Amino acid sequence: MLELIRRDGLARICRLHTRRGELETPCLLPVVNPRLITVRPRELYDIFGFQALITNSYIIRNDPLTREAALRDGLHQLLDFPGVVMTDSGTFQSHMYGEVEVQNREIVEFQRDIGSDIGTVLDIFTEPEWGRERTAESIEVTLARTVEAEGLKGDMMLAGVVQGSVYPDLREDCARRLADMKVDVHPVGGVVPLMEHYRFADLVEVIVASKKGLRPDRPVHLFGAGHPMLFALAVLLGCDMFDSASYAKFARDDRFMFLEGTFRLQDMKALECQCPACAGHDLEEIRGMTHSRRTELIARHNLWVSKMELERVKRAILEGDLWELVERRCRSHPALLDALRSLGKHQEFLERFEPLSREHALFYTGPETLNRPAFLRYQRRSRERYQHPSTEVGITFEEPEKPYSRTLRGAMGSILEISDAHFHVISPFGPVPIELDEIYPISQSLFPKLVDQQTRERIDRLMEDLAHNHGYRMGAIWEGEGTLEILRMLSKGRGCFDIDMARVGAVADYQFGKGAAEALLEGNVTLVKSKNVDRIRNVLVDGEHVASLRAEDGFFTLHPAGARRLLGGLAAPRSRVVVDDDSVEFNRKGRNVFCSFVLDADPELRPQDEVMVVDGNDVLVAIGRAQLTREEMLCFRKGVAVKVREGA
Amino acid sequence: MLELIRRDGLARICRLHTRRGELETPCLLPVVNPRLITVRPRELYDIFGFQALITNSYIIRNDPLTREAALRDGLHQLLDFPGVVMTDSGTFQSHMYGEVEVQNREIVEFQRDIGSDIGTVLDIFTEPEWGRERTAESIEVTLARTVEAEGLKGDMMLAGVVQGSVYPDLREDCARRLADMKVDVHPVGGVVPLMEHYRFADLVEVIVASKKGLRPDRPVHLFGAGHPMLFALAVLLGCDMFDSASYAKFARDDRFMFLEGTFRLQDMKALECQCPACAGHDLEEIRGMTHSRRTELIARHNLWVSKMELERVKRAILEGDLWELVERRCRSHPALLDALRSLGKHQEFLERFEPLSREHALFYTGPETLNRPAFLRYQRRSRERYQHPSTEVGITFEEPEKPYSRTLRGAMGSILEISDAHFHVISPFGPVPIELDEIYPISQSLFPKLVDQQTRERIDRLMEDLAHNHGYRMGAIWEGEGTLEILRMLSKGRGCFDIDMARVGAVADYQFGKGAAEALLEGNVTLVKSKNVDRIRNVLVDGEHVASLRAEDGFFTLHPAGARRLLGGLAAPRSRVVVDDDSVEFNRKGRNVFCSFVLDADPELRPQDEVMVVDGNDVLVAIGRAQLTREEMLCFRKGVAVKVREGA
Repeated sequence: MLELIRRDGLARICRLHTRRGELETPCLLPVVNPRLITVRPRELYDIFGFQALITNSYIIRNDPLTREAALRDGLHQLLDFPGVVMTDSGTFQSHMYGEVEVQNREIVEFQRDIGSDIGTVLDIFTEPEWGRERTAESIEVTLARTVEAEGLKGDMMLAGVVQGSVYPDLREDCARRLADMKVDVHPVGGVVPLMEHYRFADLVEVIVASKKGLRPDRPVHLFGAGHPMLFALAVLLGCDMFDSASYAKFARDDRFMFLEGTFRLQDMKALECQCPACAGHDLEEIRGMTHSRRTELIARHNLWVSKMELERVKRAILEGDLWELVERRCRSHPALLDALRSLGKHQEFLERFEPLSREHALFYTGPETLNRPAFLRYQRRSRERYQHPSTEVGITFEEPEKPYSRTLRGAMGSILEISDAHFHVISPFGPVPIELDEIYPISQSLFPKLVDQQTRERIDRLMEDLAHNHGYRMGAIWEGEGTLEILRMLSKGRGCFDIDMARVGAVADYQFGKGAAEALLEGNVTLVKSKNVDRIRNVLVDGEHVASLRAEDGFFTLHPAGARRLLGGLAAPRSRVVVDDDSVEFNRKGRNVFCSFVLDADPELRPQDEVMVVDGNDVLVAIGRAQLTREEMLCFRKGVAVKVREGA
Repeated sequence: MLELIRRDGLARICRLHTRRGELETPCLLPVVNPRLITVRPRELYDIFGFQALITNSYIIRNDPLTREAALRDGLHQLLDFPGVVMTDSGTFQSHMYGEVEVQNREIVEFQRDIGSDIGTVLDIFTEPEWGRERTAESIEVTLARTVEAEGLKGDMMLAGVVQGSVYPDLREDCARRLADMKVDVHPVGGVVPLMEHYRFADLVEVIVASKKGLRPDRPVHLFGAGHPMLFALAVLLGCDMFDSASYAKFARDDRFMFLEGTFRLQDMKALECQCPACAGHDLEEIRGMTHSRRTELIARHNLWVSKMELERVKRAILEGDLWELVERRCRSHPALLDALRSLGKHQEFLERFEPLSREHALFYTGPETLNRPAFLRYQRRSRERYQHPSTEVGITFEEPEKPYSRTLRGAMGSILEISDAHFHVISPFGPVPIELDEIYPISQSLFPKLVDQQTRERIDRLMEDLAHNHGYRMGAIWEGEGTLEILRMLSKGRGCFDIDMARVGAVADYQFGKGAAEALLEGNVTLVKSKNVDRIRNVLVDGEHVASLRAEDGFFTLHPAGARRLLGGLAAPRSRVVVDDDSVEFNRKGRNVFCSFVLDADPELRPQDEVMVVDGNDVLVAIGRAQLTREEMLCFRKGVAVKVREGA
């Protein structure tokens, strides 16, 4: 059973509960070949801290010695590994050597009988060069075998493999059908040839298609992926588990894995690695070692680099800069840049998991950054949810410093006056109404000063859209340092256009959807500002504290009075999470909402959204922040759905 | 005295000869404050392997205790450091606290008297916000003080600091005047505020301007630069030495340096670092340490990260992928991306040091890659040196698979037929004549399949240029895998357009300049091909072996017969290095040409160019590859100017 602990978009840190205890993901399972040990399983567990490994049941079964030992003493004793042991079924061998002489039933039963914690169906490896038909047919066989395995697995966890070659629709369909079966782990199979040929863009398509079909409460295992250069990207797309024999295979022919790629010992001109395996050794010394000692050293290096990168990726999930990490990693090879660029096709899908905001600023690393779901999010919400202030009275500078001109368009940070007298800040997000210029990611983003062609053209296009969609007539543009501050002062000075009132209304609608501002702010509004900086902190309506504006991301934190107003103004299920009566009392006391008690939720919820927890009669129970999407809340049986801040 | 060992463009690995022995650059000099030791100098030397450090003579002089000890026992004993000790003069203190009460004469003499190996003039720190005039005036004072110091330094090496705030012309002028003085090391000063405010694009301007003015045989020291995120970029621009107090300063307020930036201990959610300082510690433990222990640990971490990055940068110089490394590093922060983009302004300057070819393939990491000097090199040489084959008879495919069309333009790898029947491969380098498609960097470059807008528009523009400059009429375009191979087969099959003959001629002109093909190939040409792959290996004319075509970069290796032909056909000084008579006999025996014996050379020489070594009467002495440009050969007094392959 899988429990989600922390997440950033599709990327997640989870706990997989197994009969051998908990396995933290994302994780790498080193491949151990019992007939050719490079690094002892005990060392993998004790020194490297790998909680799980994967070995091949087909190889064990083919060798009478290992077969007997495994059946007699069990897999864990055979390998001397106290952690989780996953087994593969021989599918990869069939990919390598054509057929294998074993039946699905036999190999699944064997895995169960030797005490494998996670056994794998004997699926059919769909090769990238296969046609649709052959692929589709072989998927049917894989699925039939998975059904057969369900009945044989006993209390062993079962890995049901997503196949489908490079056909996204077949992958998604296969995944969807596997999601309905009694399977515990979902490897994405048949991808090794794609990785071997650096077809990373195709790999992205395969992973995304599989994720679309699978259910969120099962770990996704990228079968055969073990190169650290891929981890960040694969985790970003929602992969939880990796395995690899490469650390040892590469080591045997003197190849070092690095985040930047794989390097041959004979080509390397220096070794600056300080990993526990390399520290204190230099190239000459390593070249002088016996092959077996050298292989061990390089294998350990490869394992350390892999382990460290997974730790780095986890840290990025926790600190909110995984996208930045992925964009950096994908500059290591043009084929990875292709993969990064291909993410643009999936902005729509990724946006469904994009959090409301992040702790880390959004860094622009190149035009590919514009494909991040955060950009689509802003485009859509500002178009659908933003209404410019009704006031017809506007501010006008004494005299426009510069007239509107083509050359000025897209000058970042400059101000565009809309003819009916409200103002937009020009940014790579497009023209941003100044009322929204403090919400994530607008004011939490960093762009280079030298604007590239693609960004400039994007800005121009978005300005056209604005004029087009809203029928705005473009006004003057003002430029230069502090223009925005001047504007704010002016707007306050004149009082004709109250930027503060406009801001609370605009943010409410942007955050909770149209109608929210009306519901939340109906009445006599007072804004309490922080003394030191001139920023709105608390919003009171008719003397009641309805909401606070967070400094870090510019969005609202609701208070009970505000939540009740929203409940009244926004029709169910908007901004709601409905909980079971058994949960109500706990949540009233301020305890978190657990997935198993969620009856329903707003399908539009995004991670970190501010939500109202209600009972079956739509009565307010608590207020908090959603950790999951609706689908996830309803699917997971363990873990927190809503972090409750305040009971009602 | 500086000796260049290996180089890639302006980046270089050198040996600085000092009275304390050799110092390998690029290197970092940790700043040691004798009154506040964080990591003991002895440990810096023994454990970290820092061969040099920098300390502040002004601080030592102001404290009676340290002053007496330094004068009595010398600086090295005071610090217990056996390596090279450089001293600063108090300039930074004047930047920090306004004035300093010491004279240039006093502080220079003091540095000399306490046994500093490299002493620094009391220059005037030009602040970024200063106006031109004030900056220009203060430079005069700095230069006057430098002249004064020349007379006082004794056998201490003297550091003459380049100042000039953010005015490139003032920086270059200051540098040029310093180059004429008896100075040994050239710090680039006044840059700390730029780095503190992430003004990395301005930093690039300052470094480039200084490099333009300075002489190549002196090390350039980027004063106060100690963040590893900057090393790769600064070394690419020709910086040799760095120093920093940051490792300790940052450590004191709990900040970890990483390649990706600086992270506060309290903000960090995890620590995956495996450097010798961090290995075995976790965040909780570190947070629990006493401040002094924590400071030491973080300082050591900061030093390890810095040292490792410099090692990584050296490795990149050796392996030929420093540009790739810099482009990756500059994705860590938008301000670094600005710096990377600003390199485009200096393509012209950088091209003068761009090697003929590299071992490592050229990787495309984004539109910024198009600013690499390799692109300018190809544009220029193909325009100036390429002549399309005289043959009027052409190949035509049985039927064009696709007609020429707008949508097809810029489709990489497709073939463009020029109306007079020769052929270009369409690439981000522009349309490349198929005769040139095997030279570096054309066939040694990797681009993503998904072509970005900027690259596509560039390709289109270059195709227009081709049509325009050569008056070509665009023919059909053929596309698809292996088109080029089909074309080659056809061309061979028909024999009408001999691709091989065309290739040797085109490469000769491209490599040595117009007229080279005529001189080299006059007569009866035979091409010897490698048996296994269908590639030209050796070129014989009238039975004489004149040249070989290198598989790795597609350029010629000359043989004596070929060299003599070129000497006859190309007027001096083209492709020549003229050596002193004292050197002639050694070089004839195949020994390398050393800088001190070079009388003159072709000003158009580029590193790795194939050159003819001649005596004063233009008689061939040897053949080899240039390691340096003409200016460098004439400037350096130590080191190899030409790696001789064969004496004549």
